[in-house]
Amino acid sequence: MSVQVGVIMGSKSDWETMEHTCAVLEELGVPYEKKVISAHRTPDLMFRYAEEAAGRGLRVIIAGAGGAAHLPGMVAAKTVLPVIGVPVQSKALNGLDSLLSIVQMPGGIPVATVAIGRAGAVNAGLLAAQIIGAFEPEVQSRVQQRREATEREVLESSDTL
Amino acid sequence: MSVQVGVIMGSKSDWETMEHTCAVLEELGVPYEKKVISAHRTPDLMFRYAEEAAGRGLRVIIAGAGGAAHLPGMVAAKTVLPVIGVPVQSKALNGLDSLLSIVQMPGGIPVATVAIGRAGAVNAGLLAAQIIGAFEPEVQSRVQQRREATEREVLESSDTL
Amino acid sequence: MSVQVGVIMGSKSDWETMEHTCAVLEELGVPYEKKVISAHRTPDLMFRYAEEAAGRGLRVIIAGAGGAAHLPGMVAAKTVLPVIGVPVQSKALNGLDSLLSIVQMPGGIPVATVAIGRAGAVNAGLLAAQIIGAFEPEVQSRVQQRREATEREVLESSDTL
Amino acid sequence: MSVQVGVIMGSKSDWETMEHTCAVLEELGVPYEKKVISAHRTPDLMFRYAEEAAGRGLRVIIAGAGGAAHLPGMVAAKTVLPVIGVPVQSKALNGLDSLLSIVQMPGGIPVATVAIGRAGAVNAGLLAAQIIGAFEPEVQSRVQQRREATEREVLESSDTL
Amino acid sequence: MSVQVGVIMGSKSDWETMEHTCAVLEELGVPYEKKVISAHRTPDLMFRYAEEAAGRGLRVIIAGAGGAAHLPGMVAAKTVLPVIGVPVQSKALNGLDSLLSIVQMPGGIPVATVAIGRAGAVNAGLLAAQIIGAFEPEVQSRVQQRREATEREVLESSDTL
Amino acid sequence: MSVQVGVIMGSKSDWETMEHTCAVLEELGVPYEKKVISAHRTPDLMFRYAEEAAGRGLRVIIAGAGGAAHLPGMVAAKTVLPVIGVPVQSKALNGLDSLLSIVQMPGGIPVATVAIGRAGAVNAGLLAAQIIGAFEPEVQSRVQQRREATEREVLESSDTL
Amino acid sequence: MSVQVGVIMGSKSDWETMEHTCAVLEELGVPYEKKVISAHRTPDLMFRYAEEAAGRGLRVIIAGAGGAAHLPGMVAAKTVLPVIGVPVQSKALNGLDSLLSIVQMPGGIPVATVAIGRAGAVNAGLLAAQIIGAFEPEVQSRVQQRREATEREVLESSDTL
Amino acid sequence: MSVQVGVIMGSKSDWETMEHTCAVLEELGVPYEKKVISAHRTPDLMFRYAEEAAGRGLRVIIAGAGGAAHLPGMVAAKTVLPVIGVPVQSKALNGLDSLLSIVQMPGGIPVATVAIGRAGAVNAGLLAAQIIGAFEPEVQSRVQQRREATEREVLESSDTL
Repeated sequence: MSVQVGVIMGSKSDWETMEHTCAVLEELGVPYEKKVISAHRTPDLMFRYAEEAAGRGLRVIIAGAGGAAHLPGMVAAKTVLPVIGVPVQSKALNGLDSLLSIVQMPGGIPVATVAIGRAGAVNAGLLAAQIIGAFEPEVQSRVQQRREATEREVLESSDTL
Repeated sequence: MSVQVGVIMGSKSDWETMEHTCAVLEELGVPYEKKVISAHRTPDLMFRYAEEAAGRGLRVIIAGAGGAAHLPGMVAAKTVLPVIGVPVQSKALNGLDSLLSIVQMPGGIPVATVAIGRAGAVNAGLLAAQIIGAFEPEVQSRVQQRREATEREVLESSDTL
Repeated sequence: MSVQVGVIMGSKSDWETMEHTCAVLEELGVPYEKKVISAHRTPDLMFRYAEEAAGRGLRVIIAGAGGAAHLPGMVAAKTVLPVIGVPVQSKALNGLDSLLSIVQMPGGIPVATVAIGRAGAVNAGLLAAQIIGAFEPEVQSRVQQRREATEREVLESSDTL
Repeated sequence: MSVQVGVIMGSKSDWETMEHTCAVLEELGVPYEKKVISAHRTPDLMFRYAEEAAGRGLRVIIAGAGGAAHLPGMVAAKTVLPVIGVPVQSKALNGLDSLLSIVQMPGGIPVATVAIGRAGAVNAGLLAAQIIGAFEPEVQSRVQQRREATEREVLESSDTL
Repeated sequence: MSVQVGVIMGSKSDWETMEHTCAVLEELGVPYEKKVISAHRTPDLMFRYAEEAAGRGLRVIIAGAGGAAHLPGMVAAKTVLPVIGVPVQSKALNGLDSLLSIVQMPGGIPVATVAIGRAGAVNAGLLAAQIIGAFEPEVQSRVQQRREATEREVLESSDTL
Repeated sequence: MSVQVGVIMGSKSDWETMEHTCAVLEELGVPYEKKVISAHRTPDLMFRYAEEAAGRGLRVIIAGAGGAAHLPGMVAAKTVLPVIGVPVQSKALNGLDSLLSIVQMPGGIPVATVAIGRAGAVNAGLLAAQIIGAFEPEVQSRVQQRREATEREVLESSDTL
Repeated sequence: MSVQVGVIMGSKSDWETMEHTCAVLEELGVPYEKKVISAHRTPDLMFRYAEEAAGRGLRVIIAGAGGAAHLPGMVAAKTVLPVIGVPVQSKALNGLDSLLSIVQMPGGIPVATVAIGRAGAVNAGLLAAQIIGAFEPEVQSRVQQRREATEREVLESSDTL
Repeated sequence: MSVQVGVIMGSKSDWETMEHTCAVLEELGVPYEKKVISAHRTPDLMFRYAEEAAGRGLRVIIAGAGGAAHLPGMVAAKTVLPVIGVPVQSKALNGLDSLLSIVQMPGGIPVATVAIGRAGAVNAGLLAAQIIGAFEPEVQSRVQQRREATEREVLESSDTL
């Protein structure tokens, strides 16, 4: 089956966060690819990647970046696919800079932003699956099953307090 | 054509923001419905709405709310459709509270968060169209045309500085 | 004696914070129960719990949660019992997100919010006891005695500087 | 019927906010008194007020203050009645200073904090009524009726979008 | 004399801020050009502009933008000329988002960031002149004279208190 | 020589910060006393201490506290001596709450606020000495000598880079 | 009687804030002088002023400034008199930048910081009077009388709610 | 070749950050000098250094400082050379205070501000090189080569995910 989700990140050090995105996509059987693409250090590659994504059959791009995080927004500017932005936790400002740099996009170019750090990375994978699932019942039903498993876990954890 | 996007908001006063979402959906020919549904004042209605949305054929839910903005996250907890959250600008904290209440979701339940206020409302409509457009070429091509029109506007505005 | 306070938390990892609430209730002899109930992962259970609480004789609900902390506010939306919200310290934003998500409730549905983290958890237990104590002199007098003990501790600690 | 709730505020200029507390108490038939008592300008009066409140039959104290808002916390230090703190919106920092000064109490002395400004003032009145209502069914049922009226208002407002 | 400074801005609405940059450059006799170039709405134009700037003889680029302000950083990624970023004051977050999006650049691609809004715009013009002035004594001496005039103004204003 | 500066702190755990204040006072030969006095846990003692301070010959009170730090402001409300407030670094919010609770005093009751944590504690001691030194030349000259020693240290440290 | 307090401000536009400082000093009969002295635009004048202040008989310097407010700290670096810093409310960041630039001084050079804006300006005047009053009983007794007048005002305002 | 860049820092403890600036300048063959110069502890030295810098042939000054970071702005006030400010990460506020104290300069005296901490220190060196490179082709070409090396590193790191 062809790749449906592109997972990109601004630096190899973001992998520690973004591997959680990939783990979720794997778990839900959503075919994806992963790459380091830096808005600032490989700007031309970034533009090429964004421009070609729709034509290559991708449905969703997930971009993780930290600090003055320009990757999600600039990719979004070069594709009409939905782009999900993951604010990676930064050193000094704990990801508040990453969050604002990603979410505060001007009218015209949306980025679907999720939480800072690991929780956001997990949710980026789930959101991509939910987007695809809105059109592919099988994917949606796997998301649904994951939800039910999570619910059971909570119920069980309560008994062990 | 049946409704594809549900636009809901926590209070009638949010309409001033959320009408920009509806305007974009209209412009792009995406069928939508709009309702006031409050997480705190009509919690049962909210749950019912979220539970039934997928079955009614909706593809995306857009939820706008301000302050301790629980609507997007709680709707997301009750549906596997993608949910877009619009942080409405609040009075005291200018929407920073709305933004954090919407975007900082725990791993398991994503909300696709956009910018605070009007720019975010516009982008919520566009993001919904881009999500649908990833599967319906006609919608995608209307998004593409809107992009090109915007680009021309920028170029022209430069000449009038 | 029947349970008077329900202590709930969004995740088992919140126990590290919320155990301080339970310790205070125990110390003051206020009967309580404790459960993991997640707004996002067990929404129906949350609603059922809130709906039934008053009928089961509870006087106060204490809810701890972190990040986009919707548990206290959503429980408050489904009960007319007083609800105390404890903002659990979150990883990236140190609980500022938890605090704003809990305290910035819209007019109509109050949540009695306490400090972020452990101090707040201790105070949630005390506040519940003070609420009950306003109507049950014995509880109030135990709170009073705890105060006096604390005062003595401060006075003694001063001598050891 | 004797006064059950004391509504105090640090300055006459806070009345613009705190009148919403009084309006709610009136609406719900909860007997209250209101006074300007300043932590910084009338500290002795503040202590006397707090010390005598329980003996005078009050069940709850609501204190509104802005900036370095010490009134709620200092009253709480001098009574074992539950104290609700309303952060009044300040000029430079929009009430973030008021909020943190009120909510971040050390373990031992809780203040039940509500939202900044008018919404918080409304909710302070409701929270007081809910606290009393947990022990007086008639008050609780008036709170319940107000909730239902609010719910109807939301449903109706949705039709007028 | 050929253009030495390129002043670009993300939207025509930024002109209200960026005209202060141009006024300073004019005052100091530094030849400049001005354009609206949007990172998100005209990304290709932005890249072309940045790529060609050095070859066209520009010495400095000044880029103003607000919100998730990606223009300065992306231009910086595509040129080795010094780039000055002006954070335009945004609506909801007052330019804090603009500032962090511009200044928090990753190691490798610097942006010389100035203050939010009008003061920053004035200083961007001065900074460009100071950069050029470090190599062209005449420009430096005009900056020096402006400084002395400013000093006199302060001294005189003191007498009118 | 009689005690000139009273150093008080809200909790014994603040000693780790406030010992730096005492070290400076000792170094400069300013007689001081130190005590744990909690605004919230020993309110009456606090009032008594503040009321009696001027009569006992104190010239300055230094009060350190963290979180909802009410000690400096409440002491200031009960004395006309100058009061210096030291914001102790708090756990969740790193002392931002302490700082705002101390510095944002309403017009009428000033607190001379210094930096968060250790640097502030050092400076509180110096500020007290500078206040006394403005009237006692010997103390002022010891402050002057400390300055000169510090200057020499910087000059020497530069050689070791 | 010779001048005891120097009131300086970074720009004539700060007078709107700093006139409240002067009004208090006048009211309390503390002789003062006022000047516009800018850290950035008249740095040499600033140093000269600070260096000569003690020799001219000043007891306290009050410095008001906004944004990257360097005036209070730099004056403090050049005198061993106590320096009070007033953070003037800035346009974009509402004085948070002014506050942090003034209060977060490194160990060695204290600035006695008061609240942002008008309340801080009033309190700067009072603090100067309290410092002088700690050594001149007459000034202290005028501060005491002002306190009592303020207390009466609060009591009276309570009757008019 | 004579020194072109002066690297100064407020305290020896800033070296841990500022050594990254020096490493970049070394790598790019830009002659520099480094010194500890404190705005607050060696103000006269600071003024002398700034005043003499242009005459000594420096082209750019880089100043790193933390907390109430006055060094970059005060140096900028005393020279018409371009000054780059590096906000050193502070203990309590993680460098947000350093950033605002440096970047929020009033109109008239610019400081070219870079990111907080190590990334900013690296970029300060690069920015200085880019400024010089705008007038000296050889330096510019070394910057260009460093960019290309960085680009290759990103491309290679992607293969190792």
